Amino acid sequence: MTPTVAPLAEELAQQLGAERVLTAPEDLAVYAYDGTAALRQNPACVVFPLTTHEVAACVQIARRHRAPIVTRGSGTGLSGGSVPMEGALVVCLNRMDRIIELDPRNLTIEVEAGVVTQTIDEAAGKHGLFYPPDPGSRKISTIGGNVAENSGGLRGLKYGVTRDYVMGLEAVLASGEIVWLGNKCVKDVAGYNLRDLFIGSEGTLGIVTRVLLKLVPQPQSRMTMLASFASLEAAGDTVSDIIAAKIIPCTLEFLDQQTIRCVEDFTQVGLPTEAAAVLIMETDGHPLVVAEEAAAMAAIASARGAISVRTAADDVEANKLLTARRSAFSALARVRPTTILEDVTVPRSELAGMVAFIAASAAKHGLQIGTFGHMGDGNLHPTFLTDERNADEMHRVELSLGEIVDRTLAVGGTITGEHGVGLAKKPYLRQQLGDHSYQLLKLVKRALDPEGLLNPGKIFE
Amino acid sequence: MTPTVAPLAEELAQQLGAERVLTAPEDLAVYAYDGTAALRQNPACVVFPLTTHEVAACVQIARRHRAPIVTRGSGTGLSGGSVPMEGALVVCLNRMDRIIELDPRNLTIEVEAGVVTQTIDEAAGKHGLFYPPDPGSRKISTIGGNVAENSGGLRGLKYGVTRDYVMGLEAVLASGEIVWLGNKCVKDVAGYNLRDLFIGSEGTLGIVTRVLLKLVPQPQSRMTMLASFASLEAAGDTVSDIIAAKIIPCTLEFLDQQTIRCVEDFTQVGLPTEAAAVLIMETDGHPLVVAEEAAAMAAIASARGAISVRTAADDVEANKLLTARRSAFSALARVRPTTILEDVTVPRSELAGMVAFIAASAAKHGLQIGTFGHMGDGNLHPTFLTDERNADEMHRVELSLGEIVDRTLAVGGTITGEHGVGLAKKPYLRQQLGDHSYQLLKLVKRALDPEGLLNPGKIFE
Repeated sequence: MTPTVAPLAEELAQQLGAERVLTAPEDLAVYAYDGTAALRQNPACVVFPLTTHEVAACVQIARRHRAPIVTRGSGTGLSGGSVPMEGALVVCLNRMDRIIELDPRNLTIEVEAGVVTQTIDEAAGKHGLFYPPDPGSRKISTIGGNVAENSGGLRGLKYGVTRDYVMGLEAVLASGEIVWLGNKCVKDVAGYNLRDLFIGSEGTLGIVTRVLLKLVPQPQSRMTMLASFASLEAAGDTVSDIIAAKIIPCTLEFLDQQTIRCVEDFTQVGLPTEAAAVLIMETDGHPLVVAEEAAAMAAIASARGAISVRTAADDVEANKLLTARRSAFSALARVRPTTILEDVTVPRSELAGMVAFIAASAAKHGLQIGTFGHMGDGNLHPTFLTDERNADEMHRVELSLGEIVDRTLAVGGTITGEHGVGLAKKPYLRQQLGDHSYQLLKLVKRALDPEGLLNPGKIFE
Repeated sequence: MTPTVAPLAEELAQQLGAERVLTAPEDLAVYAYDGTAALRQNPACVVFPLTTHEVAACVQIARRHRAPIVTRGSGTGLSGGSVPMEGALVVCLNRMDRIIELDPRNLTIEVEAGVVTQTIDEAAGKHGLFYPPDPGSRKISTIGGNVAENSGGLRGLKYGVTRDYVMGLEAVLASGEIVWLGNKCVKDVAGYNLRDLFIGSEGTLGIVTRVLLKLVPQPQSRMTMLASFASLEAAGDTVSDIIAAKIIPCTLEFLDQQTIRCVEDFTQVGLPTEAAAVLIMETDGHPLVVAEEAAAMAAIASARGAISVRTAADDVEANKLLTARRSAFSALARVRPTTILEDVTVPRSELAGMVAFIAASAAKHGLQIGTFGHMGDGNLHPTFLTDERNADEMHRVELSLGEIVDRTLAVGGTITGEHGVGLAKKPYLRQQLGDHSYQLLKLVKRALDPEGLLNPGKIFE
C-alpha cells in the first residue's frame, strides 16, 4: 500500500469490515476497467456497501481523504464511465441487489442499484408485467449502471429508454446526504425535476442507490421477422417507409454484411451471409394489431426489394434472432485485436445517408468497420476492427472517427445515443453542445459537487 | 411612473420600440394576474419581444436595472407562476407565435413559445399526426407556459404530459446567453439532461423561447363513454379494476356530484345530476382494440354497480362530454365568490381513499368542495367553493386544505400533479421534499440564477 492509501482503506475497513474492502493489487486489477476497450487504471481500493447508509459513510470517508469516488456495478459500460482514476475509491454496488417491493396495483417495482436488469423484467413477468428497457448486456448489467448511463436497448423505438421508466431514485450526494427524488405518482410537478438530471449523469452528481421503476402490462403477443437486403440503401429506405407508414414497431435492428458474417460465425443461427444488410423487426401487442403490422412491414420490405423476409415460427426462433443481434459486439470483437465501438445517433431522416457515409469512410481509409444498431432510433454502432499496435492504422481510425463525428453533428445528431460520454466521448462533447450549454453543464456539476469528488475527469475535459 | 421604473422602460423602448412596451397602469393591470384566484400585483412594465435575441436583450436590460423578470404567455396558469412582483419586468411571449417547422419524416414540430397548444395539434393533424397533451386551457394556453409548468391534461394516463413530448428547447438564461438543449434524435445521452430540468421550472431558471416537440401517429379511432355511479367508492373501484385488468385507456376522468351539477347547469350536455359520481372513459387506437377495451371497461363499470354506461354515438357527442369535463373549473367558479382549486396527486392505489377523505373533510368543516380530476393519473382537483370575505369560513378552508395536504403526503402523493408550485403551493414544498432535497433544488437555482433575477419568490419560500 502506498502511504496515501493506507489510512483511507483502514477507515473504510473500520466502517464496513475488512472483508468488504479490497486493496491487494491483484484484487484491484479486476476493477481497473469496464466494457470499454483500452482504458484501464487500478483504483486505491474497492468497497462493497450493503446499504445506502454505508454508501453515505464511504462518501464521508473518501471526502475526508480527498479520494475521488467512482461508482460501478458489473462494469459493462461502453464509454469508460466506471474506469477508475489514480487514488480512487471504487464503490461497487453489486451486493445491494435486493428487490424492495413489487407493487402490482401501482405498476411499480423498487430495487436496489445492484439488481441485474434482466432480473427486474423476470420479477415483473410473474405479475403479467413488463420492464421494457433491454440493453445488450441486460443479463449482467445492473439497474444502477443503466440509470447512470440512461441505457437504451433493442426496444427503444416503441418503449423508450431507461429514463422513461424511472419514477424515483435515491441518491447519496457528494456531501454524504441522502435524497429521494420522485415518487409513485404518475404526475408530479412539485419543484425542479432533479430525478431526470441524475439519470444519465454517469456518477458525477451523486451515487444512485435505489430506483423506483414503472412497469407496463406485458404485451399479449409478438412477431419477429428477419429481412435481408442486397444493399444498405434498401434496408435504410425500408426503415424510413415503416416510420412514414406510422407503424411504431418495438424493434428495428440493423446489421451490415461485416456484422452479419461475424455474428453468423459466432452464433450459427442461419443469418444470410451474402446479404448486404439485414433488419430484425419485431412488433408486439394485441394479436390482431401485431398480425396487421407484421404484414405491413413485410410488404414494405418486399417493395424495397428485400431478398427475403422470414417470420420466426415461435419464441425460440425469435429469441435466437434477438440473441444473435445482442452478440454483435462480442462477435465483431473476435476479429482483430482492438475493437472501437461508436454510438452515433442521428435524426431518423438522416439514417440512410449516415450508413452510406460510414461505409464510404471505411473504404476511403482502408479500414474494417462493422455497423449495426437500433436503426429505428437512428442509433448506429459503427465498430472499428483494428489493432492499436499499428500506429498508421490507428491514425486512419482517428481520421475516420473524426469524419463520422463531424458528419453526425452536421446533420443534427449526437455523439452518443445510449453509451454515455465517460472518457471515450469527452473530446467531442463541447463541439456538440456549444460553449454556452457546455458551461451550463459545468455550473450544475460545480453546484452539486463543489470539491469534484464524484467521478472526476469524466464527461468534461 | 416611479423614478426607478422610468429608466428601465425607457431602455426597453429603445430596444423594442415604444409600442411594444407597456407602462400605463391600466395596461399593466391586465398583466397583474394569471388564472389563480386572489393573487394580483401590477408589474413595472410589460414587453412583447418578437425574437429570442430580443428576449435576451430584455434580460440584459432588466439585469442592469436589477428588475425581476416574470415570463408569461396567456396567463392561464393555476398556481400563480406568472403573477408579477413589485418592480417586475413582464416578458410576454404571445407574439412569438410562429410554427418554425413541421418535420413529418422525423415526427417533430418546432414552434415558438407563444404558439397556442391547440394550434400545434391542429397543425399535426394535417399530416395525420397528433400532439397528445391537452391541458384544460388548450384553446388559449401557450406551449411556453405548458413547458414552464409541465402541464398535464385529459390524456395523461396513456400519453403522458408535456415533458414526454419535449425533445428540445431554446432558452435565454439569467446571464442573457441563449442555449439549445436537446435535438431531433430520439436518443441522446451526451451530457446532463438540462432540458428536463428546465421543463417545469416555472420561469425560474431561464426563459423558454422555442420548443421542439415529438408528434405521434394519430389514433385511427376512439370510443368515449360516460359511466354514472351511486357512490364515490364504486367509481374509484372501477378505475382500480380497469388498471388491474391491464387496460390503459387514454382518458379516465372523474366528476363528483357537486361538479356534475355545476357542469350540467353550465353546459346542459345531459349529465346525470342524481349520480354520486361519473367517469368519462375514452380509449383510442386500432378499431378492434378500441372495441375490445371499451367493452371490457363497460363490463368492469357494470360489475362495480354502475347505474348506467353510455357510449358516445359519434365524435360530436364525445367532444361534448370532454368539453363538459374541461369546463368543470369554470362551472364550479360560478357558484360562490371565491374558488380555490387544488391539484393533489396520489399513487393510484390510494385514489378511492383520497376521494372519500376529501368528502369527509368537507363534511367535517361544513365546506362545499367539488372534486373532479384525472382519476387514471391519481390527479384530483378538489375545488373549494367559498368566500374570502368570510374569515371564519376561510379559517375552516385552511384547516381542510392542511388536512388534505397532510393526507396526500402521508400516502406518498404530491402537492401538485400538473399546475406547478408557483405562489399557491410554495408553503408545502419543503414538507413534501424534505430538507435535503429542498436545499438541493435551491443549489441548482443559485447556480443558474445567482442574482435571483428570474421569477423570484416563486417555488421557494
